[in-house]
Amino acid sequence: MNIALIILAAGKGTRMQSELPKVLHEVAGAPMLVHAMRAGRALDPKRTIIIAGHGFEAVSAAACAEDPEVEVVRQEAQLGTGHAVDQARAALSDFDGTVIVLYGDCPLIQSRTLEELSATLSDSAVSVLGFEAKDPARYGRLITDGDKLKRIVEFKDASPAERAVSLCNSGVMAASAGLLFDLLSEIDANNASGELYLTDVIGKAVARGLPCTAVRCAERETLGVNSRVELMQAEKEFQNLRRTEALEDGVTMPAPETVHFSYDTVIGRDTIIEQNVVFGPGVTVESGAQIRAFSHLEGAHVSRGCIIGPYARLRPGAELAEDVKIGNFVEIKASALEEGAKVNHLSYIGDAHIGARANIGAGTVTCNYDGVMKHHTSIGEEAFIGSNTMLVAPVTVGQEAMTASGSVITQDVPAGSLAIARAKQDNKPGLALKLMKKLRALKAARRNKTKD
Amino acid sequence: MNIALIILAAGKGTRMQSELPKVLHEVAGAPMLVHAMRAGRALDPKRTIIIAGHGFEAVSAAACAEDPEVEVVRQEAQLGTGHAVDQARAALSDFDGTVIVLYGDCPLIQSRTLEELSATLSDSAVSVLGFEAKDPARYGRLITDGDKLKRIVEFKDASPAERAVSLCNSGVMAASAGLLFDLLSEIDANNASGELYLTDVIGKAVARGLPCTAVRCAERETLGVNSRVELMQAEKEFQNLRRTEALEDGVTMPAPETVHFSYDTVIGRDTIIEQNVVFGPGVTVESGAQIRAFSHLEGAHVSRGCIIGPYARLRPGAELAEDVKIGNFVEIKASALEEGAKVNHLSYIGDAHIGARANIGAGTVTCNYDGVMKHHTSIGEEAFIGSNTMLVAPVTVGQEAMTASGSVITQDVPAGSLAIARAKQDNKPGLALKLMKKLRALKAARRNKTKD
Amino acid sequence: MNIALIILAAGKGTRMQSELPKVLHEVAGAPMLVHAMRAGRALDPKRTIIIAGHGFEAVSAAACAEDPEVEVVRQEAQLGTGHAVDQARAALSDFDGTVIVLYGDCPLIQSRTLEELSATLSDSAVSVLGFEAKDPARYGRLITDGDKLKRIVEFKDASPAERAVSLCNSGVMAASAGLLFDLLSEIDANNASGELYLTDVIGKAVARGLPCTAVRCAERETLGVNSRVELMQAEKEFQNLRRTEALEDGVTMPAPETVHFSYDTVIGRDTIIEQNVVFGPGVTVESGAQIRAFSHLEGAHVSRGCIIGPYARLRPGAELAEDVKIGNFVEIKASALEEGAKVNHLSYIGDAHIGARANIGAGTVTCNYDGVMKHHTSIGEEAFIGSNTMLVAPVTVGQEAMTASGSVITQDVPAGSLAIARAKQDNKPGLALKLMKKLRALKAARRNKTKD
Repeated sequence: MNIALIILAAGKGTRMQSELPKVLHEVAGAPMLVHAMRAGRALDPKRTIIIAGHGFEAVSAAACAEDPEVEVVRQEAQLGTGHAVDQARAALSDFDGTVIVLYGDCPLIQSRTLEELSATLSDSAVSVLGFEAKDPARYGRLITDGDKLKRIVEFKDASPAERAVSLCNSGVMAASAGLLFDLLSEIDANNASGELYLTDVIGKAVARGLPCTAVRCAERETLGVNSRVELMQAEKEFQNLRRTEALEDGVTMPAPETVHFSYDTVIGRDTIIEQNVVFGPGVTVESGAQIRAFSHLEGAHVSRGCIIGPYARLRPGAELAEDVKIGNFVEIKASALEEGAKVNHLSYIGDAHIGARANIGAGTVTCNYDGVMKHHTSIGEEAFIGSNTMLVAPVTVGQEAMTASGSVITQDVPAGSLAIARAKQDNKPGLALKLMKKLRALKAARRNKTKD
Repeated sequence: MNIALIILAAGKGTRMQSELPKVLHEVAGAPMLVHAMRAGRALDPKRTIIIAGHGFEAVSAAACAEDPEVEVVRQEAQLGTGHAVDQARAALSDFDGTVIVLYGDCPLIQSRTLEELSATLSDSAVSVLGFEAKDPARYGRLITDGDKLKRIVEFKDASPAERAVSLCNSGVMAASAGLLFDLLSEIDANNASGELYLTDVIGKAVARGLPCTAVRCAERETLGVNSRVELMQAEKEFQNLRRTEALEDGVTMPAPETVHFSYDTVIGRDTIIEQNVVFGPGVTVESGAQIRAFSHLEGAHVSRGCIIGPYARLRPGAELAEDVKIGNFVEIKASALEEGAKVNHLSYIGDAHIGARANIGAGTVTCNYDGVMKHHTSIGEEAFIGSNTMLVAPVTVGQEAMTASGSVITQDVPAGSLAIARAKQDNKPGLALKLMKKLRALKAARRNKTKD
Repeated sequence: MNIALIILAAGKGTRMQSELPKVLHEVAGAPMLVHAMRAGRALDPKRTIIIAGHGFEAVSAAACAEDPEVEVVRQEAQLGTGHAVDQARAALSDFDGTVIVLYGDCPLIQSRTLEELSATLSDSAVSVLGFEAKDPARYGRLITDGDKLKRIVEFKDASPAERAVSLCNSGVMAASAGLLFDLLSEIDANNASGELYLTDVIGKAVARGLPCTAVRCAERETLGVNSRVELMQAEKEFQNLRRTEALEDGVTMPAPETVHFSYDTVIGRDTIIEQNVVFGPGVTVESGAQIRAFSHLEGAHVSRGCIIGPYARLRPGAELAEDVKIGNFVEIKASALEEGAKVNHLSYIGDAHIGARANIGAGTVTCNYDGVMKHHTSIGEEAFIGSNTMLVAPVTVGQEAMTASGSVITQDVPAGSLAIARAKQDNKPGLALKLMKKLRALKAARRNKTKD
């Protein structure tokens, strides 16, 4: 099917109490707008038109970052959903296919729901997505006869019988482009708010005798976000869906309610994810790896057999081959670790390549920043880096080389060599006792002085 | 209005299973007693009388720490709420105004509720705070005619019709001091438990033909804590209220259920607070700052544009100017960091002053303790502290100075100077291989020996 | 009473989506099978027979690790619960006593429930454990007359009246060994699935005129795990029970929902456990200790007065005497710390003995691994280890000795001595400024080159 998406993303979102345009507030690490775009993308649309208004530049940038082929149209004044969709008229003047209208503040809509919606167009002129509301409240109602949509009635205009209907309007709509813009030309703003309502096209279509259809989906898919409390609800819904999905896919999580996924997290089967793990965007964890408690991952790849954490932080560009072990209070950034490498304690590894089975001692730091530029560190296979080694980059440690603990390594270490850079130990008998005594006397003297 | 608070805080709290007096158990980082005091303080009371009994000294100390002007009266024996309030009679003998009776184990009462309660005294002799109970169970019932309170009936004395009433007695009461103590003189202990009940003053007032009033509040405000499970419920209520409040104020929190506030936490608009953040007492975070996951803050000030964490610990006296960056596994204590300063990894900064835009390398430690006393470290503007620098305090590093990584700095470093304190690197060819071989042989020999 | 347990543990658990046999999936750090074994062990059984099938070796190993006296019988084909129990016939041929049938995938069954069940056998030939189901769904129903069990009816065979019964069959059963195997010989596989159902023995017993009894327990005790979602529910139930129990025992937890216990965690009264604490197996915390936020403990003993964390990791073999203090980003492994010892910041202590009141400075590492073997470090009483000291094991620091910060200690330090191993500081005037200038120029040059 030849599909164009129109995504409404012009609203200010006053109730968000924020400088950020509403559709750029994030769910699971991605702007809500991106969630809507990704749901639509599964239908392989030929065109995607974003209607932006408030925060136009920021919204435009975010949309293009996600999909460079998107077209962003500016809606100067916000005069209703009908007016918003109408902004795409010019852009789609040469488009001959189906239009689906989505919302940049409805991040939970699912691709398969959109597929079902567009599939109904074989027998339907205009199709609308509805949901059985647990509490229909003041939502517009879909008045149907079976699946046939007879009309959409606003709550305030609804009769008692109509108010008793619990099938509500999500606003998501599909129709052929030609028909949609044709019907839009007929609607007017003769209503309380003086705005053009997209829903009014249904009345126009029915008046023409065209068949309209209501497609049902789960209420949560249609959740629209207007406040931070609703944003939090959307986040919670997303996380719960994702957690259940992971469990069903065979991930072991003793406390899934403490695991936070990003929109794009990929986790393999029989992976163990312990308590309090946060996945930022761009993480892949292969089958059989283990992510221990209190770990934080962003932009990282974790291969089979790896054990990460507790308290491990993997930052973007951390590429871990099979059986790598990252222990507690360790930060890895923009570094590749080859098979079986180990960084077990209190280390910072940045801009580095660590060879297979190399062992990095506690307190090791790749000194990758000289105050102006970042430099690279290379550690060979089966190298043994002693505790508290400073690797002043750019520097290379050869395979099966060692560094003595406490060494500052400023020059390359050849394969098989031992590098040592430290002062001789000197024991001064009795000096500790003497020093302590002196310090205590000094403290006592000061204390007495304060009392005087 | 001329107000005196009487806060009942004498109970033992046997069901808490604790050595600590009940009212000193904490909700959101403050003793329950302090919550009650703070709710009352918004009414600007002239006098605050705490009735203490069990753990008198500890309760007294906690009350005075919060408000040095508080008066603590000892209740030798606990003979009922009426008896407890009566302990304030002598202290308030010269007081001419309104008395409000509060409870040290009811930490969720809101100031505005107390204001509403005292405001009714223009038309009421005695006013009582009641709540519509979801499950009225065995609470005392407020029998009313409109807002007029006719009587308070204990559950066991209540008729079926009275038991059907769901408006329950919170115990919180307001009346003029003279009247209250006058009525208290009339009540007796002729009841099952042989105690004086404060609620009996209502009967006495009504018998005199004095108008009494019931003021309604949310049930959760009246939550009284008698066990640790109830303490936990109070904590949960507090946290949920505070989280919703923060969201409504424009704070971004993807997982507010994992953020723990203290009673006095202040967070600006458009601040981002990630997952699993704990705020101890005394924290202020300005607008637009970002607190990343797994951070722990106590007694700290975080200015605009700061990025803190993940895994950052700010301890009391951490004062961060604008755009400061504190990274992972970093502890800051009693230190001021000027604008744009950075401490990105694995460092301990205590008793220090860090100049604007200074960069502190990974693994840096301010060696502030000599075993007896604490000493101060000063780092100048735009200084560059190399990784794993030990700053042996007292010590000063001048502006735009540098320290070479791995250096122990025991003397001051003048502005613009480079301080270096390290041994020359020596590479010993083949020695690593030889050493490893020897160690492996040694291990194998030991293993064989064990087998023998 | 002479008791034998038969624990069914042969199922594959296809719906777990896992390589691991179902009964080895863990709840609170122990395989589900172990939970069932421990519940049964409180009855002091003479014999414990595990019926294993899928993953026989792994199941057998886990069972024997928990209790070496257990007997594991292989069920070659899985032909129903009756068939499974029948596998124990040979092993128990000489056993004269009561048999209790348990399930390796029901980890929440309580010992006292099993005691109640077996106690009924004084008046009952066969006793079955039932539960009032909130949603009886398709469970088998226990048809009773008072406590007398008349029959067990499968949902599909039940009449409407029987389906209205909410007392459901848990499958847990007790009977004398002789009778049980006798009845089992009578049942057949003439049913839809062609399997032998253990429940059919009730029909046979009733047919013989033998009295059968239904014993009721809480529904959650009977929770059977067939998927990871159910495993997660079992974990949640366990944690909630354990958290409430801890609160009732007098443990202070501001956010118990963020504390994760293991099956064997022991916590004393008036202990404070802050937010986000994870207890792995084998942890004991004595009364009055404090575990601060974000701490992770496994196989550790924490004595009275200790303060641990935030961000402390205690690994197996951490033995902390009274008043020990472990601060942030500190890892302790296989080490004993005597009374009042302190490790406050960013340290790794492994394979060590730390004397009373010794103070370990920030960034200290026991270099316990030489690439092949682990070695021991010993620190004397009241020793003062300067920040960033590397203790190259095996090494001993005597009592009241000191190490200068930044020293690599490779030789023993006698008592009272000061050990120092560091290079002299050299300040190079103006060199920092010059270096920075050069680096900036270099960077600018590179940038221009890229533009060309």
